[in-house]
Amino acid sequence: MTSSTPLSSTPRTTLGRKKNRGATDRETLYSVLDDGLICHLGVVRDGTPLVLPTGYGRDGDTLYLHGSTGASSLRTAAGVEVCVTVTLVDGIVYSRSVNDHSMNYRSAVIFGTATPVLEPDAKMHGLKVLTDHLAPGSWEHARDVNAKEFAAVSVLALDLTEASVKVRAEGPADADEDIVAGKAWAGVLPVRTVFGEPEPSADLAADFPVPEHVTARAVATAP
Amino acid sequence: MTSSTPLSSTPRTTLGRKKNRGATDRETLYSVLDDGLICHLGVVRDGTPLVLPTGYGRDGDTLYLHGSTGASSLRTAAGVEVCVTVTLVDGIVYSRSVNDHSMNYRSAVIFGTATPVLEPDAKMHGLKVLTDHLAPGSWEHARDVNAKEFAAVSVLALDLTEASVKVRAEGPADADEDIVAGKAWAGVLPVRTVFGEPEPSADLAADFPVPEHVTARAVATAP
Repeated sequence: MTSSTPLSSTPRTTLGRKKNRGATDRETLYSVLDDGLICHLGVVRDGTPLVLPTGYGRDGDTLYLHGSTGASSLRTAAGVEVCVTVTLVDGIVYSRSVNDHSMNYRSAVIFGTATPVLEPDAKMHGLKVLTDHLAPGSWEHARDVNAKEFAAVSVLALDLTEASVKVRAEGPADADEDIVAGKAWAGVLPVRTVFGEPEPSADLAADFPVPEHVTARAVATAP
Repeated sequence: MTSSTPLSSTPRTTLGRKKNRGATDRETLYSVLDDGLICHLGVVRDGTPLVLPTGYGRDGDTLYLHGSTGASSLRTAAGVEVCVTVTLVDGIVYSRSVNDHSMNYRSAVIFGTATPVLEPDAKMHGLKVLTDHLAPGSWEHARDVNAKEFAAVSVLALDLTEASVKVRAEGPADADEDIVAGKAWAGVLPVRTVFGEPEPSADLAADFPVPEHVTARAVATAP
């Protein structure tokens, strides 16, 4: 599978409606996943749905999920079918009619079986990918994971094989008669996620400088 | 049920771990729901999980969901058990150790049966609640929903009876030996969702002023 491989087209990843919002290229999938901070992990537990916010990271066509070995969501997700969804809200779309109000957004929905990563090197690699996503630079800056911590964390891997991506990135789509009537404002109010000023921990030495991998992110626009 | 009624304590809403992050008061549930823009709606479809981003709105102890009658997610969700999750990411927590990195966040997880709202007055009320959440002021400013549009939209209602709320809002929690070693920075990088400058639609009259209900939101900090 390469970045030019189109996304799969199984019944559950084929959009039933608003097909114009579907993106079928893998690069768009990657960009949604790389821009997001958290995913929503869905599993079936006792026959009913459970959806929990979860950290993730991507390396090529593998999505890594992790959590404490004590976390019920990860235990429930290991080895079973999951649905992982990442959504970025980009704007509120104000239309002339109440009914045509909408959102600009990018979303990725991935189906598959989340497999526990047990082989130590592979698991350590998964932890690095997860850390690089949550806090780029921290893998190099912070203290390494020790043996006890390593044993206490679970890493799951999910292939990015069966996925669908939807993107809405445009202005209002009002009916002609509403445009002609001209009675209401129409446009987009952008929504952005941004990083604020770093807040050093109260128990940190007062002269400990904020490292560059944190300050660089603070001045950049977050996803 | 009043705002002072504690949240339910069923097995699936009782936190299995990190109980200190659990909030059991209804006001915290309300604030998470009111501050969020979208939810992630989980259903079981053909025995496997499906998680989709969905608009919502809250009135008292009722959560409304909506979408086109043609949307498979809403058809699948009507009358069956759903899980609705709203998550707000508030910060990246940098710790002295890779393993103690975390996020500050607020999340609400609601379980229940989503019931189609069919009675016309109740359905119209649901649409108003949904609009007030997505775009406060638009219900009064924009053209009303007409009969055809009204028929083409589905509104589902979900009681806020069985829910759990988790909040992490604090600095790093490093081990004493890592604090003493003092080798890595520790702190929080705040994450905020903000509104940008309103972008009028290209087909809008050039002299159409941006209404106050949009500008007021643009200058406020988004949830």
